[in-house]
Amino acid sequence: MDTPPHALLERMLQQRIVLQLKDGRVLAGRLLGGDEHMNLVLDEVEEKTNEVERRLGRVVLRGSNVVSLQAPSGVAARGP
Amino acid sequence: MDTPPHALLERMLQQRIVLQLKDGRVLAGRLLGGDEHMNLVLDEVEEKTNEVERRLGRVVLRGSNVVSLQAPSGVAARGP
Amino acid sequence: MDTPPHALLERMLQQRIVLQLKDGRVLAGRLLGGDEHMNLVLDEVEEKTNEVERRLGRVVLRGSNVVSLQAPSGVAARGP
Amino acid sequence: MDTPPHALLERMLQQRIVLQLKDGRVLAGRLLGGDEHMNLVLDEVEEKTNEVERRLGRVVLRGSNVVSLQAPSGVAARGP
Amino acid sequence: MDTPPHALLERMLQQRIVLQLKDGRVLAGRLLGGDEHMNLVLDEVEEKTNEVERRLGRVVLRGSNVVSLQAPSGVAARGP
Amino acid sequence: MDTPPHALLERMLQQRIVLQLKDGRVLAGRLLGGDEHMNLVLDEVEEKTNEVERRLGRVVLRGSNVVSLQAPSGVAARGP
Amino acid sequence: MDTPPHALLERMLQQRIVLQLKDGRVLAGRLLGGDEHMNLVLDEVEEKTNEVERRLGRVVLRGSNVVSLQAPSGVAARGP
Repeated sequence: MDTPPHALLERMLQQRIVLQLKDGRVLAGRLLGGDEHMNLVLDEVEEKTNEVERRLGRVVLRGSNVVSLQAPSGVAARGP
Repeated sequence: MDTPPHALLERMLQQRIVLQLKDGRVLAGRLLGGDEHMNLVLDEVEEKTNEVERRLGRVVLRGSNVVSLQAPSGVAARGP
Repeated sequence: MDTPPHALLERMLQQRIVLQLKDGRVLAGRLLGGDEHMNLVLDEVEEKTNEVERRLGRVVLRGSNVVSLQAPSGVAARGP
Repeated sequence: MDTPPHALLERMLQQRIVLQLKDGRVLAGRLLGGDEHMNLVLDEVEEKTNEVERRLGRVVLRGSNVVSLQAPSGVAARGP
Repeated sequence: MDTPPHALLERMLQQRIVLQLKDGRVLAGRLLGGDEHMNLVLDEVEEKTNEVERRLGRVVLRGSNVVSLQAPSGVAARGP
Repeated sequence: MDTPPHALLERMLQQRIVLQLKDGRVLAGRLLGGDEHMNLVLDEVEEKTNEVERRLGRVVLRGSNVVSLQAPSGVAARGP
Repeated sequence: MDTPPHALLERMLQQRIVLQLKDGRVLAGRLLGGDEHMNLVLDEVEEKTNEVERRLGRVVLRGSNVVSLQAPSGVAARGP
C-alpha cells in the first residue's frame, strides 16, 4: 500500500512523537528506532498523566503496549 | 473469497474512513497505508469521544487495537 | 473435518449474516469476504445494541474481535 | 499422546456437544467441523444463559473464544 | 531440560489430574491426551466451584484457558 | 546477550524457585524443567496467598500465566 | 532503523535499568540478558510499589509482562 506503517516509522526517526499506551499513559519523545513488532526506542521521554509530568530519559517500549503514534505534522507520508 | 479484507483496504486508500478502537475511541481520517496486521497509517485524524473532539494529525495505529473500519459508501467491493 | 470453518464462510458469501463481537455489539450484514484470521468484509451493515440501531454501510472487521457468526438457515453445510 | 484433542474432535463430528465460551455463554449444537485453531462449525445451536434460551441455527465460532467442549458420553476416546 | 513439560504430560496419561483454569474453575479428570498448545482431553471430569460440584464427562479444553495441572504425587519426573 | 533467559532457566534446574503468576498467586517449588514458551514443571510446590498456604505436589504451568521467576541467590549468571 | 530495540538492549547489559510491568509493579535491577520476546534476566532486583520496597535478587521476567525499560542516561543510542 501507498505508505505502509513501517515506512512512516522510518521517516519519523529523530522526530519528536507522541505515544498513546494501552494503560492510558501518554509519552512524548524523540524516536530512535523500532522493529516489526512496534517495539520502539525513544529518547528524552516525558510521561504525561492527568496528575503528573515526569522525565524518563531513554526508554524501550514493548510494542504490545502501543495503541498509536502521532507524527509531527511536518513528516511527509510519501518520500520525495 | 470474493473481496478479501486486504483488497478492500487497498481500495480505501486516500479515502476518509472511520475507525473503531478497542478502548472505545472513534477516529476519523484519510487512509494512507496499512499492512497484514491491520497496522494503519491515517492522516488528518480527528478523535471523537462523548466529551471531546481533537485533531491528531498523522497517526500510526497498531492493528491489535482496531475493532473495525467503516468505508465510505462509494468504495466498490469489487474492482472494475 | 466434514465442514471446516473456512469452507462454511465461503458458502456464506453474499448471504446476510449476524455477527457477535467481543465488545458485546451485534452486527448484521452481507458477507463480502474474509481471510484465515477471520478478518471479515461486510456490506449494508446494521449495528444493534439494546439502545440503538445504526446503519454503518461497508465495514472491515478485525478477526480478533469476532466471537461468532450466525449463518442463515438456508446455507448448506456440505456442497452439492 | 493417546487421544490428541484434534482426534477426539473428529470423532465428535455429527454429535451433539456442549460448548463453554469465554464470555460465559453456553452453546449446545451438532458439530459439523473444526480446524487447528479450534474454530468450530455447529448446527442446530441453542444458547443458554441464566435468563434466556435462544435458537441460533448454524454458527461459526472463532476458536479464541472457546473454553471447553463437552462430548456426549457415548464418544469413544480411542478409535476401534 | 531435565523434564520438559510435554514429557511430564505424557507420563501423566491415564492418571487423574487437577486443572486450574483462567476463569477460576477447577476441573479434575483422567488425562486422555494433549498437544503442544496444552489443548487437553480429559475423561470423567468433575468441576468444583465454591458453590457446586458437577460431572461433565468427557471434555476437550483449549490450552489458552489452562493455568496449571497438578499431577498425582506418584508420577515420576524422570522415566526409568 | 550475556545471560539469555533460557540459559539461566537451565542453571536453575533442581533449585528451589519462587514464581509470580498473572492471577496474583505465588508458587514456590523445585524446577524440574521448562520450554521456550516458559511452560514449567515444578515439584514440591507450595502456593502462598494472603490467606492460605497449600501443598500442590508436582505442577505443570502454562507459560502464558508466568510473570517472573526468582532464582535463589546462589545461581551463577554465567557458567564457569 | 537507526537504533533497533534489541541493539539498545544489548548496550544496556550490566547497566542498572528500571522496568515497568503490566501489573503496575516497577522493578529496578542490573540487566544480565534478554531475548527476542523481551524475556529478561535481571540481578540485584528491587521491587517498588506505593507501599513496600523488596529485594528480589535474581529474576527472570516473561516478556509479555513488560511495558517499558528505562535506560540510564549514560547509554549511547548509537555505538561508537
